[in-house]
Amino acid sequence: MYIILVYDIGEERVHKVCKYMRRYLPRIQNSVFEGELSDSKLAKMKAGLEKIIVSGRDSVLLWVMRDDHFVDRQIMGVEKLPVDNFF
Amino acid sequence: MYIILVYDIGEERVHKVCKYMRRYLPRIQNSVFEGELSDSKLAKMKAGLEKIIVSGRDSVLLWVMRDDHFVDRQIMGVEKLPVDNFF
Repeated sequence: MYIILVYDIGEERVHKVCKYMRRYLPRIQNSVFEGELSDSKLAKMKAGLEKIIVSGRDSVLLWVMRDDHFVDRQIMGVEKLPVDNFF
Repeated sequence: MYIILVYDIGEERVHKVCKYMRRYLPRIQNSVFEGELSDSKLAKMKAGLEKIIVSGRDSVLLWVMRDDHFVDRQIMGVEKLPVDNFF
């Protein structure tokens, strides 16, 4: 699956969530992760993330697609954390 | 077109970019916008955004799709800025 994930979480959890997320997906902007995961890895990532965030206060949005075939990814300005230095 | 836009820009431009972007797409998280735009509106939005950002320092990423048909949008925790209060 092709995944875009963004989060808006309490400052005190940002480091922990970021460290956790980087085990699964490249970080491409401050609170944005993007990449490919298998169904099982996605499920595992979400189960672990559920334990770290405070569900009544933190917000995580995922857009999950079969692949990036129908996605036109565009960049304006600079790509601050080039994706390819993670693969 | 269905669009997801995230930005990582200089603090001094955040307010201006946010104000500008909200004329085109709902803001769904701090630096995240999402919604539908026609091809012509998308082009117009990008042309205006190009004039506001500093291309050598700011970063704007867009994922543009024909529609959201192939997108499974998932939320973990709370949806901080409910999309529907913008439509």
